[in-house]
Amino acid sequence: MSRRMQILRRATEIFERQGVAQTSIEDIAQAVGLKREAIYYYFKSREEILLEIILPQSASLILNLRGVIHQADLSSMDKLRGAIEVHLNSFNPGYLEMSVMLRENHVFKDLRKLQELRRAWRDYSELWVDLVREGQARGEFDPALDPKMTAFGLLGMCNWMSRWYQPGKGVTIPELIDTFFRIGAHGIALNGAGEVVN
Amino acid sequence: MSRRMQILRRATEIFERQGVAQTSIEDIAQAVGLKREAIYYYFKSREEILLEIILPQSASLILNLRGVIHQADLSSMDKLRGAIEVHLNSFNPGYLEMSVMLRENHVFKDLRKLQELRRAWRDYSELWVDLVREGQARGEFDPALDPKMTAFGLLGMCNWMSRWYQPGKGVTIPELIDTFFRIGAHGIALNGAGEVVN
Repeated sequence: MSRRMQILRRATEIFERQGVAQTSIEDIAQAVGLKREAIYYYFKSREEILLEIILPQSASLILNLRGVIHQADLSSMDKLRGAIEVHLNSFNPGYLEMSVMLRENHVFKDLRKLQELRRAWRDYSELWVDLVREGQARGEFDPALDPKMTAFGLLGMCNWMSRWYQPGKGVTIPELIDTFFRIGAHGIALNGAGEVVN
Repeated sequence: MSRRMQILRRATEIFERQGVAQTSIEDIAQAVGLKREAIYYYFKSREEILLEIILPQSASLILNLRGVIHQADLSSMDKLRGAIEVHLNSFNPGYLEMSVMLRENHVFKDLRKLQELRRAWRDYSELWVDLVREGQARGEFDPALDPKMTAFGLLGMCNWMSRWYQPGKGVTIPELIDTFFRIGAHGIALNGAGEVVN
């Protein structure tokens, strides 16, 4: 494993364990067994490390969601379940905190990469909006619902778990997938189509 | 208006306009027309100002939600609508960012006040869980749903708007209330009870 990759791996672990806000370049350096300056040889800032961690994660989220949405033989209801599965199974406690840190960091310097990340998030949300639109066009989802508000509502339900979910305690990811799919499916089904959900 | 209150008012405006992460004590001092040191006479840190702003907002959110939930003549479905109304009408772009900043600030010093805030958030979430439980007991909501996951899912749908909602652009708060109530109500209604929603 390259030195660069090694730094990214350890940084990911630390960010997830103690939170981004509480992690300094110094902490990362110590974990890899390097001097602070050695980290700066590879990365300009903590934010650049964050971006390098989060970009590939975002890209694979999009790929997985596309895989679900482009399956021709699935009903929109099945795609909704698949989308919730992809989303919650990719969940890791660090991802959303990292996103928040980057999203709110208006003074962030590497604009090109930040734009790349913003584009990834936009593409991902757009796929959810498409999923809702397709289900409406097929008569599976309630056409009276605004597709964007609906997609963002469903995504919000899933994303908010970053605030309260504790891995290994209480509910499990499969239980969450079942519950959120049940609520989401009944919530947006065209009247009478609700019985596809059990 | 006391000097202290004046500082809190201007700080709220600035936090909402430019974001907490981008606001320094210096910015607040300039806006009030005081020196930095004068601000520190009233508040120990930016976080203490945040807490002073957010605590009364949280308390009034709880009071308003209690007002809805304790109305004896309302169905649970009506209470759900009322709860979403209270929540989204109290929405202001700064509130959630402030919450995130405080929630993630593990090094925060004034533990007593931070605990007060955490208690407020817990009480507020508990009221939502109670609302779901009551609706299940009354046969209005699906009893197969876990009340906590359900309440947190609904809250998540509402809270996530802090990430994408732009006041004055696109959808309005009343439209969001309608959409989220429609999804939430159909999502958790006991089969056949869905027709109470229009």
